[in-house]
Amino acid sequence: MARLLRSATWELFPWRGYCSQKAKGELCRDFVEALKAVVGGSHVSTAAVVREQHGRDESVHRCEPPDAVVWPQNVEQGGVCVNLTHMDRILELNQEDFSVVVEPGVTRKALNAHLRDSGLWFPVDPGADASLCGMAATGASGTNAVRYGTMRDNVLNLEVVLPDGRLLHTAGRGRHFRKSAAGYNLTGLFVGSEGTLGLITATTLRLHPAPEATVAATCAFPSVQAAVDSTVHILQAAVPVARIEFLDEVMMDACNRYSKLNCLVAPTLFLEFHGSQQALEEQLQRTEEIVQQNGASDFSWAKEAEERSRLWTARHNAWYAALATRPGCKGYSTDVCVPISRLPEIVVQTKEDLNASGLTGSIVGHVGDGNFHCILLVNPDDAEELGRVKAFAEQLGRRALALHGTCTGEHGIGMGKRQLLQEEVGAVGVETMRQLKAVLDPQGLMNPGKVL
Amino acid sequence: MARLLRSATWELFPWRGYCSQKAKGELCRDFVEALKAVVGGSHVSTAAVVREQHGRDESVHRCEPPDAVVWPQNVEQGGVCVNLTHMDRILELNQEDFSVVVEPGVTRKALNAHLRDSGLWFPVDPGADASLCGMAATGASGTNAVRYGTMRDNVLNLEVVLPDGRLLHTAGRGRHFRKSAAGYNLTGLFVGSEGTLGLITATTLRLHPAPEATVAATCAFPSVQAAVDSTVHILQAAVPVARIEFLDEVMMDACNRYSKLNCLVAPTLFLEFHGSQQALEEQLQRTEEIVQQNGASDFSWAKEAEERSRLWTARHNAWYAALATRPGCKGYSTDVCVPISRLPEIVVQTKEDLNASGLTGSIVGHVGDGNFHCILLVNPDDAEELGRVKAFAEQLGRRALALHGTCTGEHGIGMGKRQLLQEEVGAVGVETMRQLKAVLDPQGLMNPGKVL
Repeated sequence: MARLLRSATWELFPWRGYCSQKAKGELCRDFVEALKAVVGGSHVSTAAVVREQHGRDESVHRCEPPDAVVWPQNVEQGGVCVNLTHMDRILELNQEDFSVVVEPGVTRKALNAHLRDSGLWFPVDPGADASLCGMAATGASGTNAVRYGTMRDNVLNLEVVLPDGRLLHTAGRGRHFRKSAAGYNLTGLFVGSEGTLGLITATTLRLHPAPEATVAATCAFPSVQAAVDSTVHILQAAVPVARIEFLDEVMMDACNRYSKLNCLVAPTLFLEFHGSQQALEEQLQRTEEIVQQNGASDFSWAKEAEERSRLWTARHNAWYAALATRPGCKGYSTDVCVPISRLPEIVVQTKEDLNASGLTGSIVGHVGDGNFHCILLVNPDDAEELGRVKAFAEQLGRRALALHGTCTGEHGIGMGKRQLLQEEVGAVGVETMRQLKAVLDPQGLMNPGKVL
Repeated sequence: MARLLRSATWELFPWRGYCSQKAKGELCRDFVEALKAVVGGSHVSTAAVVREQHGRDESVHRCEPPDAVVWPQNVEQGGVCVNLTHMDRILELNQEDFSVVVEPGVTRKALNAHLRDSGLWFPVDPGADASLCGMAATGASGTNAVRYGTMRDNVLNLEVVLPDGRLLHTAGRGRHFRKSAAGYNLTGLFVGSEGTLGLITATTLRLHPAPEATVAATCAFPSVQAAVDSTVHILQAAVPVARIEFLDEVMMDACNRYSKLNCLVAPTLFLEFHGSQQALEEQLQRTEEIVQQNGASDFSWAKEAEERSRLWTARHNAWYAALATRPGCKGYSTDVCVPISRLPEIVVQTKEDLNASGLTGSIVGHVGDGNFHCILLVNPDDAEELGRVKAFAEQLGRRALALHGTCTGEHGIGMGKRQLLQEEVGAVGVETMRQLKAVLDPQGLMNPGKVL
């Protein structure tokens, strides 16, 4: 990457702007030849199918293909829509030190497969089999965060190609200690910066002992309040719950249909516990007492791996289950996070807003962190409906802010929540972030238009 | 603070430089009058005893009194040597959300006393009864970090007076959520910045459920290697140990004498476990098996509060125990942190270096994090000995760096480790930190000369 960035900085990143100045086809040809000269002809593609694949995601947003896709093989190359999946080595595993260094092509599942016989695992799990460096760049979290923390808690070091091509090791080259008081926390600054400060080309992760035993459970509640109260009581009782997920009755209905479950259609918690057999017994007993005090019914443990896997597959397929309820529509997912005591009121308000707006939506969330997602279904060709969906998402963000929360617990700011970010951190907060962006990326080359 | 900073910025902070331009006494009088006009006469002192009190600490460094001491009462005031202890309110306790907001005058013990009946506590414990905002500024950790993390993991939000007097809320005013993906992690940038980026005037902390039961233990080992191997095995077995502290035989001897303990003079682990009675039984059993496999002897549990308190008081008084072995001398404490697998070799090397240098020193450390302190005794009037102590500390820092560690796990860079910081994070790392400092504090007003 460094070579490309150094030789052709401003031409590379503001690509669309540059192309628009002249006849596009001609300029692209010159530029693509320049790219091929650096990374080799077989690592550059302008094929429509490839470009479309890199401009599409699961969201409602329309496909925005880049003009070219480049696969660098090492940090000396790079540029444009930089696809780092060809850098896919697990560089270093330090079992005794509970750490590992991975390149951007290594995914969460690939790492855990590699760790299978080591007695260790990497717990941060956003559902999808994401790139671990991508998870660092977006500050990912997910279902296990309540116990094991988010990427912010589990990244020990980053290798970053800075906008001017220099290579930064945020905690020093090759270092992988548990804690440090040496200078500013550069690692923390780059985790969650959404690609706006540099390209993350390697991540050193903290690993955890693989759980000795695992039990999952589901339980249905008479109300959202009862489900959330149970969560608070479980946390207060210091039960080290590994996952505690809330699904509203709309989502439970969708999951029953899509994943052939037979659960009660009611506000429901999916739980998972990790520990020794003996510790699990106690965790299960305490949890069962708490949820029953809160009126839970249809309470069932899943101790066998197969049954557990069926439950969590259903949870991870919630997105597709929601999509299946209105075929032909796209999903629009938004997330917020509030202090846990405010969760019942915001979930209830959100359900009222949904009804009032006439939109189709369901709620699923990492309730132990006060974080939930609202998945809305929308016909992307219906501009009026899309407008209502966006207004609803903005209203939800503002509700979270009013309750001392954040407009996004894990999805990030991107382009859609830049206004909400200003409202969240205030003028001085945004100005400080702008100062950091300006000093680290003075030409605004990295992921332009995002976050700020 | 804001008012003083805005009205007289450059006069305030580079105080010594400014005074040296004219007859010092005269200028100070003018300046002190200016300070009094802002904060009131009774909140400014130039008395020698007060100035000396603010220029002295536990270290070997000579007393460097400031020219004046100012106690602001709110964030609208401030300047010079800013003593924030008069801002000592616990502003907000959110029990259900496990969070609290404190001003700089609130110490760790004062907060935990306040929390006594809430079922919650704040676990980060650097030993001293430090200011919580000061602990945030220095990124403190200490004995409980192995289980509960450091300040980096437990600060949710900061109120900061920036060098130009503006007020920044790093996560937005009044916010106290568990996680967020909204923009750059400003909180993480200010935690551990050692006062060089702004004045922390309030901190929102994450609280934890108070442990239901607590057991402490000590066990002696035939070697450093055996003690550290036990630590790794305990962590690998996922025993959620709350504290695991290493003391070498020199330190055990000093503690026996100073704190009237009767422990074996050998490499020793001090442990503490938190949990339910039932969970504790299992933790104790597993730990006992592991340490016995590693040749531990003189193994003893302390289940009673009084006996536990005696042990941990002895551990926290290790500094004074070391000082007492050579009356009239000062202590010089340095710390490093390495990947845990490298801990035995660096401790053994360090003990050899100590013997070779003819210095008096002992080792005590947060071994679960790979972090340890070396406490050296030195006659501050003996320049030659002081020189040997500094050379030894620098050599220890370099040893840690060579083993992929950090030159400071928790003490920070200050002025003494600026060269080691360069070696640790490299030219690009230091340059990036300098850029951040320059953009946030362009006049270099905040804690000048520190870190960079």
